[in-house]
Amino acid sequence: MSRVFNFSAGPAALPLAVLEQLRDEMLDWHAQGMSVMEMSHRGKAYVGIAQQAEADLRELLSVPANYKVLFLQGGATAQFAAIPLNLSAPGAVVDYVNTGTWSTNAIKEARVLNKPIKVVASSEDRQFTYIPASIAFNKDAVYAHITSNNTIRGTQWSRFPDTGGVPLVADMSSDFMSRPFDAGPFGLVYAGAQKNIGPAGVTLVIVRDDMLGRVPEGLPVMLKYTTFSSKNSLYNTPPCFAIYAVQLVLKWIEETVGGLDKMAALNRAKADRLYGCIDASGGFYRGTAEPASRSQMNVTFRLAGEELEKRFLEEAARNGLSSLKGHRSVGGCRASIYNAVGLEAVEALAEFMNAFAKRNG
Amino acid sequence: MSRVFNFSAGPAALPLAVLEQLRDEMLDWHAQGMSVMEMSHRGKAYVGIAQQAEADLRELLSVPANYKVLFLQGGATAQFAAIPLNLSAPGAVVDYVNTGTWSTNAIKEARVLNKPIKVVASSEDRQFTYIPASIAFNKDAVYAHITSNNTIRGTQWSRFPDTGGVPLVADMSSDFMSRPFDAGPFGLVYAGAQKNIGPAGVTLVIVRDDMLGRVPEGLPVMLKYTTFSSKNSLYNTPPCFAIYAVQLVLKWIEETVGGLDKMAALNRAKADRLYGCIDASGGFYRGTAEPASRSQMNVTFRLAGEELEKRFLEEAARNGLSSLKGHRSVGGCRASIYNAVGLEAVEALAEFMNAFAKRNG
Repeated sequence: MSRVFNFSAGPAALPLAVLEQLRDEMLDWHAQGMSVMEMSHRGKAYVGIAQQAEADLRELLSVPANYKVLFLQGGATAQFAAIPLNLSAPGAVVDYVNTGTWSTNAIKEARVLNKPIKVVASSEDRQFTYIPASIAFNKDAVYAHITSNNTIRGTQWSRFPDTGGVPLVADMSSDFMSRPFDAGPFGLVYAGAQKNIGPAGVTLVIVRDDMLGRVPEGLPVMLKYTTFSSKNSLYNTPPCFAIYAVQLVLKWIEETVGGLDKMAALNRAKADRLYGCIDASGGFYRGTAEPASRSQMNVTFRLAGEELEKRFLEEAARNGLSSLKGHRSVGGCRASIYNAVGLEAVEALAEFMNAFAKRNG
Repeated sequence: MSRVFNFSAGPAALPLAVLEQLRDEMLDWHAQGMSVMEMSHRGKAYVGIAQQAEADLRELLSVPANYKVLFLQGGATAQFAAIPLNLSAPGAVVDYVNTGTWSTNAIKEARVLNKPIKVVASSEDRQFTYIPASIAFNKDAVYAHITSNNTIRGTQWSRFPDTGGVPLVADMSSDFMSRPFDAGPFGLVYAGAQKNIGPAGVTLVIVRDDMLGRVPEGLPVMLKYTTFSSKNSLYNTPPCFAIYAVQLVLKWIEETVGGLDKMAALNRAKADRLYGCIDASGGFYRGTAEPASRSQMNVTFRLAGEELEKRFLEEAARNGLSSLKGHRSVGGCRASIYNAVGLEAVEALAEFMNAFAKRNG
């Protein structure tokens, strides 16, 4: 058994200690004589797991009491529909900022559902390589949607925009729990788990109570936030095992890493190491995102040509540095360095990058 | 480590061999240096798993070529909305048969979505203890919905009804892959995985091509069957690990059990053993479902009083016979004996039931 350094953009690396615990408990969780996968979701054991997951998340993120934490299914894509369906009143304006593929998909979905949305800013003019500044949000918008981190182009909001009181709604799928944030300006935050906090198959939603007051009748029950907020996410059978894995990752952030401030510092150090390596390469590596908008999660870069990139990826894989290929829509290289990608993985990649540049420069 | 005999109604027991394989591969799947949970869903390894899962399912069930097999999220509850939204044209009649809580929920959801549905038969008059016969389906109905097995009241369709050509739509969540069936009369079949074929978090849908032709524009993308049929269920990140577990269970049915006919024979033998025990108890145990409608998946029964039932459940648990409590809405006792509950578990339960009856009769 030998583990690779896994830079996959998601589903992505999980903490080794979490995988070991899942392995050790697979046949018998806490002397219950069964796996977490085999338990009733209404039994004391699983309900305890779900409550612990919520409590850990609330504590790590300091979620205020007037927000609900929900565990849903369907990934961010299901939320692209759920958000306008639940939160936009008929005729009301909603603002969207377009910073790449996932924002574009969120916008497309709101339009499919016939919601009168306004794209108040976009970075499409320069291939989504930056985060727009000085955005004029509509004062009467009922929410303003952003994508906090853009996996494909490698950009990230370093500070969230001032909307002048309009509730922010953020797709945080790819940087959720990678750093603390103040929930105050947010009406709703959502994230697929499969980057920073668990396996694919569970979606986290943090939603402010006043947003729940907007939820209309007549929606499919699984797309209504109130279905889950009123039942502690136990309206129907949840993805129990995925939620358990999330709980273990949250515990790992708390106990092993030492909390979200330390997690953020570690993530910053990892990103600094790789961007430093790119910037010191004398142009051998070229970061694709504008420096002020660089993502601390997805470090995207190009080499001089596709042939050289192919060789880079092949040699990296042979050296145990896996999944460094850029998204199929843009090509190039991408190192996704989510929470569970350790400093030693980043160090190994930086050393490989330096050596490869020296050999091929 | 000691495993209990697990009669949970779902999530439910999984084959020990499957759990052992999941455990052994947790840190390193097939020398990839990572868990299935950590892999890109677009990589060769995971795509191979998904293709294998579909191929195994098609082979076991002899799914005809004009049906698509989809892997979705949200459980049967999401399908309660997806079915009328995708398959019922405006103004068209749709038929529903009400055989219990889950049928009732499917009906409720169709009504919430303003679909003009007709309940053509119901067993509510006798507390859902039987499956209706001689149903007059509407000739012009665009589909007829049934629930093939009813977990709470312990009833099951032993033969599917003749609709006179109206496409059947069946919620098979609790007996899917427990027996073969002829797909021909079905327009769509759906099933949450967490009873017979895997952990919670993935929903199987088998849908006939002509049904896909009905899917309208303007639906949330995650509720549209065509989103998934056109992308091999890889439109967005699927619940990869749950799908992998399903693939292993399907392989277990094929290779260890010996196919779906043998699975069905085993399930019949298990059910016969328990109903035989109930019927031979001289009234000490009383089956709640009418004999002709008895479920081979959920054996529901009562004892003389709640006090005695409580003692039965406690003593059973102390003897390693777990999760025998009836659904909270009806009380009593229930032995769920899905695919992965072995004959030895059923034998142990039957012996305990006989001994308990002798001691307390």
